[in-house]
Amino acid sequence: MVDIATRVYNHRWKLDPIVRSLIDTDFYKLLMCQTVRRNRPDTNVTFSLINRTSSIRLADLVDEGELREQLDHIRTLSLSRGESTWMRGNTFYGKRQMFTPEFMDWFEGLRLPPYHLERREGQYELTFEGKWPEVMLWEIPALAVLMELRARAVLGKMKKFELQVLYARAMTKLWEKVEFLRPLDGLRIADFGTRRRHSFLWQDWCVQAMREGLGDRFVGTSNCLIAKNRDLEAIGTNAHELPMVYAALAETDEELARAPYKVLADWHEEHDGNLRIILPDTFGTEGFLRHAPEWLAGWTGIRVDSGQPEAAAEAAIEWWKAHGEDPRDKMIIFSDGLDVARISELHRRFAGRVRTSFGWGTLLTNDFRGLTPDDALAPFSLVCKAVSAEGKPTVKLSDNPRKAMGPREEIARYQRVFDVGEQTEIDVLV
Amino acid sequence: MVDIATRVYNHRWKLDPIVRSLIDTDFYKLLMCQTVRRNRPDTNVTFSLINRTSSIRLADLVDEGELREQLDHIRTLSLSRGESTWMRGNTFYGKRQMFTPEFMDWFEGLRLPPYHLERREGQYELTFEGKWPEVMLWEIPALAVLMELRARAVLGKMKKFELQVLYARAMTKLWEKVEFLRPLDGLRIADFGTRRRHSFLWQDWCVQAMREGLGDRFVGTSNCLIAKNRDLEAIGTNAHELPMVYAALAETDEELARAPYKVLADWHEEHDGNLRIILPDTFGTEGFLRHAPEWLAGWTGIRVDSGQPEAAAEAAIEWWKAHGEDPRDKMIIFSDGLDVARISELHRRFAGRVRTSFGWGTLLTNDFRGLTPDDALAPFSLVCKAVSAEGKPTVKLSDNPRKAMGPREEIARYQRVFDVGEQTEIDVLV
Repeated sequence: MVDIATRVYNHRWKLDPIVRSLIDTDFYKLLMCQTVRRNRPDTNVTFSLINRTSSIRLADLVDEGELREQLDHIRTLSLSRGESTWMRGNTFYGKRQMFTPEFMDWFEGLRLPPYHLERREGQYELTFEGKWPEVMLWEIPALAVLMELRARAVLGKMKKFELQVLYARAMTKLWEKVEFLRPLDGLRIADFGTRRRHSFLWQDWCVQAMREGLGDRFVGTSNCLIAKNRDLEAIGTNAHELPMVYAALAETDEELARAPYKVLADWHEEHDGNLRIILPDTFGTEGFLRHAPEWLAGWTGIRVDSGQPEAAAEAAIEWWKAHGEDPRDKMIIFSDGLDVARISELHRRFAGRVRTSFGWGTLLTNDFRGLTPDDALAPFSLVCKAVSAEGKPTVKLSDNPRKAMGPREEIARYQRVFDVGEQTEIDVLV
Repeated sequence: MVDIATRVYNHRWKLDPIVRSLIDTDFYKLLMCQTVRRNRPDTNVTFSLINRTSSIRLADLVDEGELREQLDHIRTLSLSRGESTWMRGNTFYGKRQMFTPEFMDWFEGLRLPPYHLERREGQYELTFEGKWPEVMLWEIPALAVLMELRARAVLGKMKKFELQVLYARAMTKLWEKVEFLRPLDGLRIADFGTRRRHSFLWQDWCVQAMREGLGDRFVGTSNCLIAKNRDLEAIGTNAHELPMVYAALAETDEELARAPYKVLADWHEEHDGNLRIILPDTFGTEGFLRHAPEWLAGWTGIRVDSGQPEAAAEAAIEWWKAHGEDPRDKMIIFSDGLDVARISELHRRFAGRVRTSFGWGTLLTNDFRGLTPDDALAPFSLVCKAVSAEGKPTVKLSDNPRKAMGPREEIARYQRVFDVGEQTEIDVLV
């Protein structure tokens, strides 16, 4: 039986929207948005799309008209009643009313601000300017739109069974990863793959497959819409944009040196328990830990998002021990370019020494490598970052020099201020 | 949108039927049925199910009540108007009115005769007795029902995503075969997989995938219902049951020796062109060719269905040459236990020497080997054969002693009468 009404509804579509909701975004964006509104609501920032894989000429692959349609569609979105009810009524990280009524009133009235789009040398220059709490919410949907439009451009040329086999292969590939992870006792793993997903539908499939295949080893998803629809935990804490913007706003080197700790002091006032996770690598993990205030050692854990994860985790364990903390009470969240072999190694290495958890991103929701003859669906390294605050450039160093960003002289200043020593270059896959 | 009507219709199902139509059968069954009605309409025969893979205990796996429901359902089927129109109006092998009006009148009124079912030592004894033209039509649906019920017993224990991944893996596996075959210039391949298919829906998928993936290298399907629904050629000629029953009816050794040629003489009166395909292995290919009448060398081709296919094909080529025929005008159809590596080898070996064609069966429509942990969906060797005619046992020797069937003393007599020499044993996979 053909469902005629559905078919008719579908063939009237002007647009098959990629982002269908304001909460089709990462949970930590909403947490950070609330913090920013509390502490720096009037800061003017610019976010910009940066394609670190320059061989992928996005402006040649993705039609500008389609891109504008998708971005314009996102600007029409507002929070639905059901979404608002979920945010107001749900328990996040064991806490009721994570989002204050004041924040929710504001968020219910929000529409995303305008964007600026230009083509240059085969790439799109896509920037967002305005108040930090609004502009920051563009990051995830902008990335998801670009990733999925690029995929659609490739998929549009494929035949019916070829398409079905493509997804059959992708499902098979993901399921083999699930089967690889299943024997790992005590594994805790979450989906962090919204920003670079192949598509919304595919992320939704991956999340459900993980839940069936891994049971309670799968602890949730960073995607709020999927968490809501599939009755899962929404997962996430905070990101580099907080120290990057705080640092850019610093007036002196001394203030700059204190900026990353100021971010966490503000966070400390708002959150406790498993939300007290340090992200130490923005300006180098080593210097960050060496100069960290005593009270930070009392936090629950550390997220490792660049560099050599074993080295960073060992450094964290030593740091806790030096401050009289028992690492077995602490948590390390690995979230940088993970795939199953790496997850398994890290899980085994640190078992019994520290609690571990994994935020699995691109290679969960977009591992289409090897599935088309010319690898036209392989994921690539697209980011959308705060590039300036109140007209001053931001800087990120990270624990891998290849991920560093910002003007050269500012990078040099930050390296000096944050006491960054020798760093190892590591290839950036995704 | 949920199509409520479809959902409601589905959850009322008492039975999800496996065989949905009297033409969900092999084309050659219908051709042979017409021949039998013309030449031996009143012969009483018994067909019986034989599970050559005794390790698969069908009666432990498949519920007897479900089996009876499926078989009873088949007895309720009659030819629909659309099916009748297709058989009467379609062109088969380039010929209009392949089925005579007299045959069609009879077929339109047909219901399949009763079956006899008993359990014995973990197996089902399933037999069909009655007039040959009716009983013979049980073979394919009976096999398809047993194969699919066994699969459903395994599938019934699987979870939702596990099921989806199972089919994803099966699709991936089939598509890899399609991609392997695609570069073979001049390949001609057909689906012969109805009898041992995983399921009807899966066979239908495989056929469509072959059509998209192989284009005109895919020449059609033996399944009449799928040929009709998908607008493909229906493919097939004749099978062992004809010489087996003719031979069983022979009164003397001399008559027995002539029986296989009598079958083809009857066929010769009805069919020409690509339907004049010799199936020489029922009582051994070597003796068959040595004693064959001159006029048979004028036929279009030979089907190789047991033994060493290269040896049989080389023997056929030599035989044609010895009779002044140019093998390049002839066709050899390979149809025994094929998979892609074998198809490719045979295609390359005989390219330019003889026209080749491939009837691909079980490993097209049921290659679920390796797709479940305990291989519970691997195909197995189930047949449904004429075991007696007018109370006298039938015999099949074939070119592989492991496929021989019949009473021991009768096999010995047939070996003597048909001048069968040394034979090589070959494992029977499917």
